[in-house]
Amino acid sequence: MSRPLILVTNDDGIMSPGIRKLIKIMNSFGDVIVVAPNSPQSGKSHAITIEGGIKCTKVIIDDGPQIEYSCSGTPVDCVKLAVYKLLERKPDLCVSGINHGSNSSVNVIYSGTMAAAIEGYIEGVPSIGFSLLDFSKDADFSEVDKYIKYITTVVLNNFDNKNICLNVNIPKRLKNISIKGIKVCRQAYANWAERYEEKIDENGVKTYWLTGEFINFDSGKDTDEWYLKNHFITIVPIQVDLTNHNNLPLLNKLILNE
Amino acid sequence: MSRPLILVTNDDGIMSPGIRKLIKIMNSFGDVIVVAPNSPQSGKSHAITIEGGIKCTKVIIDDGPQIEYSCSGTPVDCVKLAVYKLLERKPDLCVSGINHGSNSSVNVIYSGTMAAAIEGYIEGVPSIGFSLLDFSKDADFSEVDKYIKYITTVVLNNFDNKNICLNVNIPKRLKNISIKGIKVCRQAYANWAERYEEKIDENGVKTYWLTGEFINFDSGKDTDEWYLKNHFITIVPIQVDLTNHNNLPLLNKLILNE
Repeated sequence: MSRPLILVTNDDGIMSPGIRKLIKIMNSFGDVIVVAPNSPQSGKSHAITIEGGIKCTKVIIDDGPQIEYSCSGTPVDCVKLAVYKLLERKPDLCVSGINHGSNSSVNVIYSGTMAAAIEGYIEGVPSIGFSLLDFSKDADFSEVDKYIKYITTVVLNNFDNKNICLNVNIPKRLKNISIKGIKVCRQAYANWAERYEEKIDENGVKTYWLTGEFINFDSGKDTDEWYLKNHFITIVPIQVDLTNHNNLPLLNKLILNE
Repeated sequence: MSRPLILVTNDDGIMSPGIRKLIKIMNSFGDVIVVAPNSPQSGKSHAITIEGGIKCTKVIIDDGPQIEYSCSGTPVDCVKLAVYKLLERKPDLCVSGINHGSNSSVNVIYSGTMAAAIEGYIEGVPSIGFSLLDFSKDADFSEVDKYIKYITTVVLNNFDNKNICLNVNIPKRLKNISIKGIKVCRQAYANWAERYEEKIDENGVKTYWLTGEFINFDSGKDTDEWYLKNHFITIVPIQVDLTNHNNLPLLNKLILNE
């Protein structure tokens, strides 16, 4: 492949440390176009803007060679706008992140970061979402370079113009424990047990604030949750057929084609 | 089962004709609690509100026996708030819709209606999303009653407290063609070829408006797209493991556990 065209986006917004780091890494691989939200879009999942217009402005944020657009839409809007409007050709790679926080297990469903990568995949662009298990604005990205470079190289070398989408999660940097390696694995079966805090807003109206606790129901040792707990980077390949194929025979028996 | 507790929601908003119809139908099955968005939330997918509070108000919209809450959040917020805050016990069924427009094939990924049903499923509640292939506010719901009742009965009778999520799409009412029956099938492989219309807003700023064309890449005769085209109601059972299990062996070869 000649110098690849790489689309970079995220859900934490174009100014977040995670995407600034990812842009720097991607500049070493190819021509980088950033199309990212102008404000935080965490938890926006695969939302698209259909009841209004999206604003999109060319911006210069630092002195790298990348070209950058700041957009008023969701992460998925950014990818669609890039592919269908802003870019002259289909990118060779779409990377999203580095997210501040985990997108392992069921989080993939809620994540704007992963939705952007999944949208790239739907559009036929090899795509990777990167997430670091550290919500802090000052998250330590110092160990991530070589792993992100390695995974990006594998995708560019083996999936040129092929359908692939990877959900990559990186353990939080701990003082005494290094990352042990990379594991390809499946999404753990887990959930959030939610609580809602009640607060009174400035107009005296009661509001409910989401908070919750992640619960892993999956004791499998082949899951992202297991490997992350054991200090491995996890790679879960992603697909978008939501059909529950296991349910088809039973439902075919129950539903009469009247 | 004694009289079931049924949670009703949607993405078109609590005042839309589709949900008013669905509430009426569900009143014949059990005790109905409506927790639905106070404004249109189409295309909101699995988005959740994490950077603010949700307002939620008890409302009376018509003279049915149902209890109704109008919420400022997304469809998924409505389901979470219902299950974790508003309801005294876990509902026996969660129904979402009737959506004005198709949620077949890849649309399931973008749909707020289906995201609400999927959230119900994630929370362990048997769930059904209903959609009519008619965007009109005056959509003709006259044929849908018996089919929605039939599918609801099948779920209540066979999946009490079991994991099930159904994506039900109903063909548009045509003058000379009746619905031919119900088919259990898989999600077609399809996509949207997007276009963006450029408009100048009231401040003179360029905005991009999403519009697109649905493209079905799937020639299979066992898909929702095929059956809808042939005037059948389609039922696609849904699951939320996005792992691309087919990719695992190849990736395991390519990724060295260094």
